[in-house]
Amino acid sequence: METFFKVTDLESVLALRRTFPVAATEEIALGEAVGRVLAEAVRSDVDLPDFRRATMDGYAVRGASTFGASEGNPAYLALRGAVPMGQDPDFAVGPGEAARIATGGMLPAGADSVIMIEHTEAVDETLIEVYKSVAPGQNMVEVGEDVARGQEILSAGRPIRPQEAGLLAAFGRGRVSVFRRPVVAVVSTGDEVVPVDQVPGPGRIRDINTYTLAGLVASAGGVALPLGIVRDDPQDLRTKCVLALAQADMVLISGGSSVGTRDFTIEVLSGLPAAEILVHGIAISPGKPTILARVGQHPFWGLPGHVVSAMVVFEVVVRPFIEHQAGRAAGLRPRPRLPARLTRNLASAQGRTEFVRVRLIEQNGELWAQPVLGKSGLIHTMVQADGLVRIGQNTEGLEKGSPVAVLPFH
Amino acid sequence: METFFKVTDLESVLALRRTFPVAATEEIALGEAVGRVLAEAVRSDVDLPDFRRATMDGYAVRGASTFGASEGNPAYLALRGAVPMGQDPDFAVGPGEAARIATGGMLPAGADSVIMIEHTEAVDETLIEVYKSVAPGQNMVEVGEDVARGQEILSAGRPIRPQEAGLLAAFGRGRVSVFRRPVVAVVSTGDEVVPVDQVPGPGRIRDINTYTLAGLVASAGGVALPLGIVRDDPQDLRTKCVLALAQADMVLISGGSSVGTRDFTIEVLSGLPAAEILVHGIAISPGKPTILARVGQHPFWGLPGHVVSAMVVFEVVVRPFIEHQAGRAAGLRPRPRLPARLTRNLASAQGRTEFVRVRLIEQNGELWAQPVLGKSGLIHTMVQADGLVRIGQNTEGLEKGSPVAVLPFH
Repeated sequence: METFFKVTDLESVLALRRTFPVAATEEIALGEAVGRVLAEAVRSDVDLPDFRRATMDGYAVRGASTFGASEGNPAYLALRGAVPMGQDPDFAVGPGEAARIATGGMLPAGADSVIMIEHTEAVDETLIEVYKSVAPGQNMVEVGEDVARGQEILSAGRPIRPQEAGLLAAFGRGRVSVFRRPVVAVVSTGDEVVPVDQVPGPGRIRDINTYTLAGLVASAGGVALPLGIVRDDPQDLRTKCVLALAQADMVLISGGSSVGTRDFTIEVLSGLPAAEILVHGIAISPGKPTILARVGQHPFWGLPGHVVSAMVVFEVVVRPFIEHQAGRAAGLRPRPRLPARLTRNLASAQGRTEFVRVRLIEQNGELWAQPVLGKSGLIHTMVQADGLVRIGQNTEGLEKGSPVAVLPFH
Repeated sequence: METFFKVTDLESVLALRRTFPVAATEEIALGEAVGRVLAEAVRSDVDLPDFRRATMDGYAVRGASTFGASEGNPAYLALRGAVPMGQDPDFAVGPGEAARIATGGMLPAGADSVIMIEHTEAVDETLIEVYKSVAPGQNMVEVGEDVARGQEILSAGRPIRPQEAGLLAAFGRGRVSVFRRPVVAVVSTGDEVVPVDQVPGPGRIRDINTYTLAGLVASAGGVALPLGIVRDDPQDLRTKCVLALAQADMVLISGGSSVGTRDFTIEVLSGLPAAEILVHGIAISPGKPTILARVGQHPFWGLPGHVVSAMVVFEVVVRPFIEHQAGRAAGLRPRPRLPARLTRNLASAQGRTEFVRVRLIEQNGELWAQPVLGKSGLIHTMVQADGLVRIGQNTEGLEKGSPVAVLPFH
C-alpha cells in the first residue's frame, strides 16, 4: 500500500537546518586547525609588522638622499653600518647616509626606504655609489601595513584555510577555539544487505551506503560513526536508533526504499523520545522518499537506499545541515559552480528539482557537461560523474548546448 | 653580492617531478580509504548485481502479460506469492502470473519486469488487477547492469572519492592497496623568525610559513612534518637538512629571501650527500628565488621567505610534485579553473609567468575576479583571496573585463 505523503520543496527543507543547534566548541593546537571552523572572533593585538621591514636586500636610506641619482650622476652615501637580522639597529640613518640591510631586516630610525643592492656599488668600507633614486616607502613594509592593531582579523564561523592559520600564527595564536566536528552516525538497513567482508548469498548485495556516506560526512566537516547494518525489523531499528542518538549529533539511516520499510522507519522515528517528523518526502529527483525527523536536538535522516539517491540527497540536503552544525557562518560564499554546456537534450519533469549526474569534458577550451545516464541504484554512474547539474522545478527540460552550472563533487 | 642565476621556466620545472619516485604502497581498511590514491587496478570478479533486482515496489511479472492493460481494460494476473527480501524466490512466474516484490528484491525466474504497485489493485489474496502495461526490463536492474564481471573498474593512481569507496565495497574490497602519503618536512629559517608561542622582540616576526605550508601539504595529500625554525647558520641548516632527509620524502625550507641566506642555502644543499641543484630560480612572480635540489631520491625545496611567495610557489610548483609522489595518475583532469572576468586592468612583465591573487565576486550571475593588491610579504592578502589568476609569460597585461581562469584555493 502506498503511503501518500506531501512532499516538501527543497528550499523549505534547507531552511530547517537553522532550527538545529551548532556543535560545541573546543580549543585545539593551531597545527591541527586547518580544515576546522573558527569559533571565536580574533582581533589583532599588535601591528603586523610592528617594525618597518625591508623587502629587498640593499641599503636603508632616506629616499631624499637618492633623488636625482643616475648611472651618469650617482649619489654618494656614507655607510653607517649594517642592520643585524632580527635586531633593533642601534644607530640612525641621516641625510646622505645608508645602512646595509637584508630582506626582513628592521629599518634604522631616520631611514624611509631601501635602495636595492643592484642599483648600488660599494666604493670602499665607508662609502657607496647609488645609481637610481628610491621613493620614500619603497622596498619596505610599513608598521601595520599587513594588519593594523585593533582590527577584527577573522570572525567566528570562518573555515580555517592554510592562510588563516598563517594569520593566526602571526598573532601568536598557538591555540584556537574551533567548533567540534559533528559526529554523524551512519546506519544501513535491509534484509538484503550484507557487510563488505561477506559473500552475498542469492538476492543479497554488499553494503555500499556506509562507505559512500561516511566518506561524504568527512568531506563535509563531520566525523562519521559507522554503526553497521540493521535488518528490516522495527525493534532492531529502534535499538540502533537509540544507540546512534546517544553517540551522535546527527543520524543517517539509509535503505528502506520499499514502502513497507519506509513506513516502519517513520513509525520507529515517531516513537523515539521527543521526536517530530519534519519532512516526509522532498520535491527532488532522485531522492524523493527522504525523511527528516527532529529527535531531541538531533536531525535524523531516513535516506533512500538506492546508492545514487542517497549520495545526491547528501550533497544537496544533508551537507548544508552538517556545515551548519559544524559552525560555518551563514553568509559564506557557496562552493562555486562550474559553467558548462550540455552535450545533449535533457528532459525533466516539472514540480520537482532534478539533479543530473554529469561528466565534465574540456573541448577547445570550453567545458561541456555530459549527462551520465543510468538508474539511481547504479554506483558506477557516480564513479563516472564529476558533479551534478540542477534543473529547477519550473523547467521542463534543457536543450543540447544550454549553459548549465555544475556543482562539482568535493 | 647578487648571485646571478639562470631562471628555469615553469613548465620545465614541473616536468622534473616525474624524475622522482612515487611513494611505496600500503594496505588499509576501506573505511580509511577516501582521500587516498588507489595503488592497484581493481577488476570486477562478479556481475553487479548478480541477480535481477527490483527498483520499485510492485509485482514481478512477464511484461507481455500486461500489454494492452489500461484503466478501462485492466489485465488480471494470478498472484503466485511474495518474494522475501534477500532471498532467492523458490517459485517462477509464468504468463498471466505475478509475484509481490519490494524494491531491492530478486525477480523470480520467468519474470522480466516489475509493475508498480500504484498501477495495480489487489482483487483478493490470489488475484490482482493491472491498469498499465510494463515493458520487459522496466523497473528492474539486469544482472551486470551496474558493472559486468571481468571489467577493470578502477585503475591504479586514481584518487578514492566516496563513490569509488562505494564501488570497492560492492566488490567486497574491505582492504585496499593505496600509496603511502608522502611525508613532507617543513622548516622555517631566519634569525628574525620566532616560534608562534613567543613574543617577537624588536625586528622579529613569528613563524607563519610553518603553518601555511603544513596546511597546504595536507591538502595536497601529504603528511606535514614541521621541524621548526633554523637560524641563519650553515651548520645548523645542514644538521636540520640531514634530520629532515632521514624522516621525509620531500623537504620544504622557507626563508632565505636575502641573497646571503640564499647563497648559503645553495651551499648547504650542494654539500649534502648525493645532492644536485636542479633549479635555481623559476621564471614566475612571485616566487622567482626558488631552489629545487635532488638529494638522493628526494626533492628538496628552498622556498622564498615571503609568505605569499611561499604559498604561490607551493600551489603552482610544489603541489604537483607532492601529487606525483602520492601516486596520482598522470592523466587525471586537473582541478577545474573558474571562468571569471577581471574587475580592473592588470599590468604584467613579459618573460615570466605571473600569479595574481584574486577575490571572487558574483554579480548578476557572473563571476568577477578582483585582484588583491599588496606586497608578497603580507599574509592578509592571501586571507582575502579565493584563488590565483595566471598571466602567461608572453602576455603584457590584461584589460579590465578580460576573461580569466581562476585557480581556486583548495
